[in-house]
Amino acid sequence: MTSLSDVLADSAAQVEKFLDQLLAVEDATEHRLHEAMRYASLEGGKRLRPFLAMQSASLFGVGERSALRTGSALELVHCYSLVHDDLPAMDDDDLRRGKPTVHKQFDEATAILSGDALLPLAFEVLGHPETHPNANVRIELVNALARASGACGMVGGQMIDLQAEHEAFDIAQITRLQRLKTGELIAYACEAGAILGQASKQSREALRDYAHDLGLAFQIADDLLDVEGSIEEVGKAVNKDADAGKATFVSILGTERARSQANRLADQAIAHLSIFGDKAERLCQVAKFVVERKS
Amino acid sequence: MTSLSDVLADSAAQVEKFLDQLLAVEDATEHRLHEAMRYASLEGGKRLRPFLAMQSASLFGVGERSALRTGSALELVHCYSLVHDDLPAMDDDDLRRGKPTVHKQFDEATAILSGDALLPLAFEVLGHPETHPNANVRIELVNALARASGACGMVGGQMIDLQAEHEAFDIAQITRLQRLKTGELIAYACEAGAILGQASKQSREALRDYAHDLGLAFQIADDLLDVEGSIEEVGKAVNKDADAGKATFVSILGTERARSQANRLADQAIAHLSIFGDKAERLCQVAKFVVERKS
Repeated sequence: MTSLSDVLADSAAQVEKFLDQLLAVEDATEHRLHEAMRYASLEGGKRLRPFLAMQSASLFGVGERSALRTGSALELVHCYSLVHDDLPAMDDDDLRRGKPTVHKQFDEATAILSGDALLPLAFEVLGHPETHPNANVRIELVNALARASGACGMVGGQMIDLQAEHEAFDIAQITRLQRLKTGELIAYACEAGAILGQASKQSREALRDYAHDLGLAFQIADDLLDVEGSIEEVGKAVNKDADAGKATFVSILGTERARSQANRLADQAIAHLSIFGDKAERLCQVAKFVVERKS
Repeated sequence: MTSLSDVLADSAAQVEKFLDQLLAVEDATEHRLHEAMRYASLEGGKRLRPFLAMQSASLFGVGERSALRTGSALELVHCYSLVHDDLPAMDDDDLRRGKPTVHKQFDEATAILSGDALLPLAFEVLGHPETHPNANVRIELVNALARASGACGMVGGQMIDLQAEHEAFDIAQITRLQRLKTGELIAYACEAGAILGQASKQSREALRDYAHDLGLAFQIADDLLDVEGSIEEVGKAVNKDADAGKATFVSILGTERARSQANRLADQAIAHLSIFGDKAERLCQVAKFVVERKS
């Protein structure tokens, strides 16, 4: 069997190619906007969310093009959120994936606008008939992404995160913060495959439960990297949370308990996939991968 | 016949009520986000865009609830765009509709996030079955709004507008700027009614042509208000463009020619509606109203 890292790399290359074609720079007065949108979206990360969407779609025999488009739409939302989170008024980060953040490379106004343009583009990609011939399926994808990325999802989570600098959060509050801030989009990634495949309620719930545990495991691993990683390995500033006096899973649980909690969540995530048998092997590998990764 | 201002006020009240119910403040850590979303969206303006959507929908016998939801979704996008346009990194405005702008009333991060949350909410409203029972119609609404509000529409226009401070634009460039920045959303308002009513190609084109001329007339009138209005009448800072050295329709054409151009465009807009006969009376009145308004 091909290794997970090879399959991940292959799917990331597909996403990269799709986004590269989608985000053409037009010869127009506003070309700077298009350049910033490309800068924010290309050469980016592991593309874990599209991979989850594509793998969950494959459980139901969904066509590759449908899954790629859906995963890439989701990635556009993820990329926009990073641009806005990095802004001076938010987390004020200079570095992302080892490169200057968008407002550093361009300017603040262009960074805000590039995020503002990536979000509707995601809905445009989902709404296009090439994503799925059935309009009911497409509208369900739109609705789920709108919820996951809005005030009751990602943006709500970022708002809570800003307050975490001023308030002493307990584990329940941090868990809710992360469920909204990163968890809802990860859950969408897994659910999107089920929506595309018009899967049974049971399958959807299994994927949602998997995504829930995976999202938390992912975040605890992220907190561990923030404490233990170096700037070279992680590609962005480390120790940010500790420096800001923000409570994290690691600051409350300690490194050892946090690590065992992440592993437990990964095992639990895998257990939810049992109904799919061997077909879910890659998703099981992902759960192990997110807690073992070094960047 | 009831006066236009009464009908406008009645439809604005319906939009206000719908948004008031939609934007409930939850008793949660992130309640500040919900409050900012309400502040940005309620007690707002003439609600001209929803009115256009509702009036164009009425040409095709569309149900009031469908038209109200569609118009309100569009208004959410308009409100988010004002919040982001007012940010210090953009137009840096302190006053909007006679009240402190969102980043002044709350803070910059909350302002960015409230805009970021209003946009997906618009798609959520459109995607809901209550907006239209036919998923094909809903997805068409989603696609058209995504295009109108993205890099090839509103956000692209705002990017060009930022450059207008550094470059000497001619009339063609200003026209393109305004077509993208305000025109595409106004065109969406008129087209949305035709989409809801599954109207003929001919009807759609007539509404699109009407919207095109109306949007330009609206913008020229806005430029005239910026030059001639007082801060009390207009409810926001005036003379901004002149102070920033930005070319506008008025700075290039002069007050008199700009006014006659606006009137000519309004007449032209009205002419496009002839295929609808008396049914389009309100839309004709709107065209006159936008060039005669004092705020």
